[in-house]
Amino acid sequence: MKSLKTPPIFCCPPLLAGRLTETEAASAAVLFRVLGEPARLQLLSLIAAQPSGEVCACELVESLGLSQPTVSHHLKVMYEAGLLQKERRGTWIYYRIVQSQLVSLRSVLT
Amino acid sequence: MKSLKTPPIFCCPPLLAGRLTETEAASAAVLFRVLGEPARLQLLSLIAAQPSGEVCACELVESLGLSQPTVSHHLKVMYEAGLLQKERRGTWIYYRIVQSQLVSLRSVLT
Repeated sequence: MKSLKTPPIFCCPPLLAGRLTETEAASAAVLFRVLGEPARLQLLSLIAAQPSGEVCACELVESLGLSQPTVSHHLKVMYEAGLLQKERRGTWIYYRIVQSQLVSLRSVLT
Repeated sequence: MKSLKTPPIFCCPPLLAGRLTETEAASAAVLFRVLGEPARLQLLSLIAAQPSGEVCACELVESLGLSQPTVSHHLKVMYEAGLLQKERRGTWIYYRIVQSQLVSLRSVLT
């Protein structure tokens, strides 16, 4: 007589693949780390709130009550991460948000 | 004769208020820091990809090729940050994403 084997018991069905590849997760994590700083979020928020979509660095210093070196540092980090683009016009540098990056991050959070 | 005073020259118009308050920026920054870790994004991605919207912790360990303590640590951090909710059923703990938190973060990135 054949023995009846009990099938193994699983706690749950096998997982589907996740939506993010390892590379996508790594890139998004770098950007989220950059955003993990309140002053940077406020800077982005100020830039986003402008009808022109851009802000002169000098105005950002006045608006947040932070020192100029602190604001410059945060802008540099966000620029180097690809979250901001900048354009020099005469004495001033104007910053603008790279919308495609925010769109990618929003899709990670969907 | 009255002297004609030259008005001060500004480089750009005054900034509108940003969209985020200081408190909102601080709360969002905490969550973004939590997300600044590739393994956590992959865990969220795996949970989000399930038709049931929830995943047993045991399955997450198998899926990502990470050690059980590492996965447990990441799940704990996300649970404590309010990004995940959990429910124990018998031996197993099931995790589910707190959608309202992701909605808030998406709105910060708009």
